[in-house]
Amino acid sequence: MSLIVQKYGGTSVASVGHIEAVADKVARFRDKGHDVVVVLSAMAGETNRLAALAQEVMEQPTPREMDVLLATGEQVTIALLCMALECRGHGARSFTGGQVRILTDASHSRARIREVDSTRILAQLEQGNVVVVAGFQGVTEHGCITTLGRGGSDTTAVALAAALEADECQIYTDVKGVYTTDPRMVDGARLLRHVTFEEMLELASLGARVLQIRAVEFAGKYQVPLRVLSTFEEGPGTLITLEEHAMETPAIAGVAFERDEAKLTVKGVPDIPGIAYKVIGPVSERGIEVDVIVQNAAADGNNDISFTVKRGDAERTLEILQQAIPSMPARTVELDTHIAKVSLVGVGMRSHAGIASRMFKALAGENINIQIITTSEIKISVVIEEKYLELAVRALHSAFELEKAENG
Amino acid sequence: MSLIVQKYGGTSVASVGHIEAVADKVARFRDKGHDVVVVLSAMAGETNRLAALAQEVMEQPTPREMDVLLATGEQVTIALLCMALECRGHGARSFTGGQVRILTDASHSRARIREVDSTRILAQLEQGNVVVVAGFQGVTEHGCITTLGRGGSDTTAVALAAALEADECQIYTDVKGVYTTDPRMVDGARLLRHVTFEEMLELASLGARVLQIRAVEFAGKYQVPLRVLSTFEEGPGTLITLEEHAMETPAIAGVAFERDEAKLTVKGVPDIPGIAYKVIGPVSERGIEVDVIVQNAAADGNNDISFTVKRGDAERTLEILQQAIPSMPARTVELDTHIAKVSLVGVGMRSHAGIASRMFKALAGENINIQIITTSEIKISVVIEEKYLELAVRALHSAFELEKAENG
Repeated sequence: MSLIVQKYGGTSVASVGHIEAVADKVARFRDKGHDVVVVLSAMAGETNRLAALAQEVMEQPTPREMDVLLATGEQVTIALLCMALECRGHGARSFTGGQVRILTDASHSRARIREVDSTRILAQLEQGNVVVVAGFQGVTEHGCITTLGRGGSDTTAVALAAALEADECQIYTDVKGVYTTDPRMVDGARLLRHVTFEEMLELASLGARVLQIRAVEFAGKYQVPLRVLSTFEEGPGTLITLEEHAMETPAIAGVAFERDEAKLTVKGVPDIPGIAYKVIGPVSERGIEVDVIVQNAAADGNNDISFTVKRGDAERTLEILQQAIPSMPARTVELDTHIAKVSLVGVGMRSHAGIASRMFKALAGENINIQIITTSEIKISVVIEEKYLELAVRALHSAFELEKAENG
Repeated sequence: MSLIVQKYGGTSVASVGHIEAVADKVARFRDKGHDVVVVLSAMAGETNRLAALAQEVMEQPTPREMDVLLATGEQVTIALLCMALECRGHGARSFTGGQVRILTDASHSRARIREVDSTRILAQLEQGNVVVVAGFQGVTEHGCITTLGRGGSDTTAVALAAALEADECQIYTDVKGVYTTDPRMVDGARLLRHVTFEEMLELASLGARVLQIRAVEFAGKYQVPLRVLSTFEEGPGTLITLEEHAMETPAIAGVAFERDEAKLTVKGVPDIPGIAYKVIGPVSERGIEVDVIVQNAAADGNNDISFTVKRGDAERTLEILQQAIPSMPARTVELDTHIAKVSLVGVGMRSHAGIASRMFKALAGENINIQIITTSEIKISVVIEEKYLELAVRALHSAFELEKAENG
C-alpha cells in the first residue's frame, strides 16, 4: 500500500462522462488499497471561456481578480469528481488551493509555491477518504487567491507529492508517455519506460506536449518520482527519475526536434572582445528569445556569428540587426527561414564516446548537410535544412537503434 | 457620507453588459463619497447550469460537494464586477464568503450564518476600495464551503450590513419596490415608500417576489434599514424599517392575495379536546403545509373544521383525511379547489378600529361571499370563491384608498 498523487488535465475532465471515467480509475487504485490524492485541472475550454468573459469587461483584466475568476474552473471539477467517487461508494473530499493552504507568493497569474500544508489532506487520508485538490491555484499569506500560470496543475501535483512524501506522482494526459521521438513522424518511435529529469528537460520539444518543464524541475529538486501516463489507455507510461535509478542507462534517450526556427548570420564582424554581445544584445533586449548561437573565425580575421530564433520573430530580428550593422560593424546580415533543429538527448552520452561522430555519420549517409553544431553535456544539436528534418530524425532514430527495447 | 451595502441579484448580473451597468451604479455612489460594499448573486441561470452538471453525475449530489460547486457561481460575478470597477477608475476587491469569513453552521445547502468577521472588509474600505462579496455562501469553522440556500444572497447582504453597522442595506431587484398590491392586477397599485418589517413579513405573497422572508426577519432582528429598489429604473424604492420610523402610519399598507389554495372541510367531528390535532396532525405529518385553520361549533354539538393547503397538495390531503375519518370520527370531508385568499395588512390596524367591518362592507358591496375569516394583529384574511379574486382585491384597494399618496 502506497500513497499516490494523480493529476488529470483538462482533456481528461472535459465532460461529466470523462470525470466518471477518472472516478473509475481512481476507484481501482483505492480498491488495491492505495491512498490517493487527485489533482484536477478545469474542464478543457473552461479557462478560455472565463478569460473571454474577463476580456469583455476589461482589455487587461486586473490580475488579482483574474485569478479569482479562473480559480472557479478547478473548483467545479473537484466537486464533480468527489460526487462521482461518492456515487461509487468511495469517500471523497474536495479542497481548493486555499483550503489545503498551498501558500504562494503574490505574483498573480504566475505565482510560485512557497509552502504546502499537508495537515488537512493527511487527516482526510487517515479517515479513508480520497482527497481531490484543485490544481493551478494557491493562496497568499493574506488569503488572496492566486494561480500558478498555464499548466500549473502539474506543479501543484508535484508540490503535493513532495509535501506528502508520496511514493509516486502520476501525471495523466492524452499521450501514453514520453517517446524516443514524435510517433507521428517515426513509425518505430518507442515509449520510454524511464527517462531522467535531465533528459526530460532537454527533451522539452517532445516533452512540452506531455509535461510542464517547471513541474519536472520541481520534481527533480524534491526527488519526487514522476510518471507520465495516458488517461485513456492502460499502460505503464514513462517514469522520470534520478539517474541512479536507471540501472543500465542507454546512451541516447530520444531524438528531439524543433521545426519552426530561423537562422540569422551576421557576417564579417571584427574578431574583438565584446562583439558577440554587440550582435545578440540588441536582439534579446527586445524580448526575442535566442536559441543556438555559434561563432566561427573566418580566414580574413573577421568572424561570422550565427544564431537561431523562433520563425515568427525572424523578420523583426533581421530589422534589428540591419539597423545595428554600422555599430558592430558588420559586412552583411543573412536570414534563412528554412532551417530546423534536430537533437540527440541522453545522460548516457557522458560516458559513451563517439556519439557525435556516429550522429554526423548517419546524417552524412543521407547526404544531409549540417549548418550548425552545438553540444551540451547530455545533448547534441544540429541545424539543418528544413526539408531534411523528417529524414534526419528517422535516420538518427534508426542509427541509434531507438526502436529496440530498453536494457534493464 | 455613509456606508451602504448593496445587493444585486442574478438578473442584475445576467451578462457582462448587466455587470457593467451595476459598476456604473456603484461608481455613482462612490462619486458621492459613500463607502460601498456590494453583494452579488451568480449570473441568472448559472446555478441551474451547475446543478444540472451535478445531477448528471449523481441523482442526489453530496451536499458538501454541491456547495463547493455552486459557490463558484458568485465567485465569477464578483471578479468580473471588480474588473469593471477598476476599469472605471475605482479600486475594488472581491471576497468569497470564506475570505470574508462569513462563519456558518455545517448544514450544507441551507447553512445559517453564525458570525461575520468585518475586519478585512473594513480595512479595504479604509483604503478607499469598493468591497465586492460573493453572496449565498459561507464557510464552517473547519473551512468547508457552505451555501445559504436559494435567495441566500439577500441574507448575506443583511448580515454584512448588520456586522458593518451600515447606514442602509439596498436590495436591487427587477421591481421598483413593494406595492400596495400586485400592479399587474390593479392599475392603481402604488409603490410604498415605507413598510415595517412586520408588514413586509405579512405581505409575503407580494413580497416574496421581491425579498427573501428570511432576510427580512434577519434585518428586523438586527434593525438594519432595508431598502428594495430596481436595478433597471431610478427611484427611491421601498424602505423597510421599524414601526417608530414611520411618522404617520397609514392603517393599511397593502392588499395581499394567494391564488393557488384549496379548502378542505371536515364535517361532523365531535366537540371534544384534541379533535383539531386529530384532523390536522395526519396532514402536517406528511409534510403538507397548512395555512388558514378555522373551527366552527355547529348546532348539533358536532363541529366543522376547515383549513386551506396549496392547491397542488389538495388531492393528497383529501386522501389522508378520508383514511382518517373513522379515527376522528367525522361524518364527511369536502374539498373545494376554487378558492382564493385575500388579506389586508397594516401595522396601523392595531390602533384603528373598524378595519374589519370596512373590509366586509366593501366585499358585500360587490356581492362577494366570505367563506372563512381569520385575523392576526396586523392582518385580516378572508377566503372567497376564486373567480371573485380580482374584483375583491380591486374593491379593497379602492375602499382603503391605497392608490392615494402616503401620509408623511
